[in-house]
Amino acid sequence: MRATVIYGERDIRLDEVPNPVLSTGGDAIVRVVAACVCGSDLWPYRGVTPTKEPHRIGHEFVGIVDEIGPDVTTIKVGDFVIAPFYDCDNTCVNCVNGVSTSCLNGGWWGSNDQLGGFADGAQGERVRVPHADGSLVATPVQPTDDQVPGLLTLADVMGTGHHAAVSAGVTPGSTVVVVGDGAVGLCAIIAAKRLGASRIVAMSRHADRQAVAREFGATDIVEERGDAGVERIHEMFDGVGADFVLECVGTQESMDQAIRSARPGGMVGYVGVPNGGAELPIKALFGRNVGVNGGVASVRAYVEELLPEVLSGAINPGRVFDLQLPLTEVAEAYAAMDQRRAIKVLLRP
Amino acid sequence: MRATVIYGERDIRLDEVPNPVLSTGGDAIVRVVAACVCGSDLWPYRGVTPTKEPHRIGHEFVGIVDEIGPDVTTIKVGDFVIAPFYDCDNTCVNCVNGVSTSCLNGGWWGSNDQLGGFADGAQGERVRVPHADGSLVATPVQPTDDQVPGLLTLADVMGTGHHAAVSAGVTPGSTVVVVGDGAVGLCAIIAAKRLGASRIVAMSRHADRQAVAREFGATDIVEERGDAGVERIHEMFDGVGADFVLECVGTQESMDQAIRSARPGGMVGYVGVPNGGAELPIKALFGRNVGVNGGVASVRAYVEELLPEVLSGAINPGRVFDLQLPLTEVAEAYAAMDQRRAIKVLLRP
Repeated sequence: MRATVIYGERDIRLDEVPNPVLSTGGDAIVRVVAACVCGSDLWPYRGVTPTKEPHRIGHEFVGIVDEIGPDVTTIKVGDFVIAPFYDCDNTCVNCVNGVSTSCLNGGWWGSNDQLGGFADGAQGERVRVPHADGSLVATPVQPTDDQVPGLLTLADVMGTGHHAAVSAGVTPGSTVVVVGDGAVGLCAIIAAKRLGASRIVAMSRHADRQAVAREFGATDIVEERGDAGVERIHEMFDGVGADFVLECVGTQESMDQAIRSARPGGMVGYVGVPNGGAELPIKALFGRNVGVNGGVASVRAYVEELLPEVLSGAINPGRVFDLQLPLTEVAEAYAAMDQRRAIKVLLRP
Repeated sequence: MRATVIYGERDIRLDEVPNPVLSTGGDAIVRVVAACVCGSDLWPYRGVTPTKEPHRIGHEFVGIVDEIGPDVTTIKVGDFVIAPFYDCDNTCVNCVNGVSTSCLNGGWWGSNDQLGGFADGAQGERVRVPHADGSLVATPVQPTDDQVPGLLTLADVMGTGHHAAVSAGVTPGSTVVVVGDGAVGLCAIIAAKRLGASRIVAMSRHADRQAVAREFGATDIVEERGDAGVERIHEMFDGVGADFVLECVGTQESMDQAIRSARPGGMVGYVGVPNGGAELPIKALFGRNVGVNGGVASVRAYVEELLPEVLSGAINPGRVFDLQLPLTEVAEAYAAMDQRRAIKVLLRP
């Protein structure tokens, strides 16, 4: 089969690789219907995190189950399934606690350390899923083609935006600022609206993303950044800042923006993978009683809650995909995201 | 009148100082019935934070109202009152949000920058309270002498321990670890128990403090620290750690202990004033979805909730005072706390 391999900085290739094979009894082979490129894939693409040796890449996919092991009980061949951006058993203590990204037996797509050995990256034609019953959620019926992008967001970005809002503890009637206008930040707007926020500020300086933000529920747009951005947010909210801030980038600059935009006693929900020298300024947090909560989003736990609203069209997170390409053009997909020609690119094998 | 002045490292004196005078209309003069020494007073005492010039010190007191300004409406002359460890108007947006330590018009005891000028330190005979109606809470009746220590804890340590538990979000049936066996840590045990925690671990290696911890509701004691302490906590709780950890010290060592003792998805409530190089390790927090919340405890907001339980004896935080001295022996009070001969020292002018 064909699958995406990253060789180094700006070197993405679609290679011929071995077909995955069932190996543990509880696993499944999923034929990928749609995958996509994540903002975090751009760190190795840009060379910010070095690629020591070529490896498979991609962690978001939906597809049709082709084969299952004899121990699989809930997932059936032919099911249309959503996979989270990681494998998990959904039964260990961390999964039961809702933190399936810390599954004691799970792992990451494209890794050799999974149960039963290698589990494929998502930007390919097929993926072996080590814990089929734990990781996969089947849709009640086969979705239409138009529903696929929305379902794919449940693999990562919609669940991750939701995690930011849940981690912050967004409450009905509250004020929310979203830092980051990528796919996750935009989905965080949907999440804040679902949880009842009365005002939602999108910090964005790109007209196309501002339009999606408005569509998703943003009531205000702030284009300023840094000191000016913080000042603007304070002006908007009683001179002290917003109740909740959702940090969806992961840089020091964005984290500072988030922390300073929260009012005393406010909470920052953060899901941007910390990179570079991002740090939490403990004295500033302590003095103003601003809390931080979040991390690698346990999206598996949110699929059942969000799936009906995606299927009904009550929420439309699939709008973050503003470019669709065949898998053969995966290198162009990375380039389009890197150059901000696209918010998020959907790939069809 | 007489009041405590710190001159430098291990140099505490009881000096003759001017009597406070009403100056703003909304202020009051309180005759101090009891004050005390805080763990945070030991930082300048030990020279960890330098004393540039002699200044008044102490921030916890209860007393009797001697005089009120013409604009005071809720507090009366003769009232027995509890003051929080700071002055606040209790009406600004931050106070209304429950974060009175960020009061837009408040300040700190012993500071020149208060409304109407200087407000006295608490370790003295009298204190001018700039916002009498905002800061002071009168007891419904005059307390007995035995009730005074418990009431004094509402000025800081009981409210601060409560803030740790509230900031962490302790829930009924949850597991809690308390890092720090000083007065605040011990009060945090009371707070966790009040909020319904089913297991409460006190990390302590001092027999006297362990005894108070048990009395306050600790179900387990862990004497180990560092890696061994973390391992012990993980062993106790499903191999992954506790739901909530209350950090009541403020050093890097204690913060690390707290963060590593929390399970994935757990929450650290922290109230120990960060000192030295204390930092929050963002990658460790992010990877395990451990949140941190807390800060300078807004104890004013908690007085009404906790006061009836102190008066009824339902909770007995006054037990943290294991030494009482006359104000004339304030230097010995500092020495006793510094040398860990006392958990907390109560001073009577």
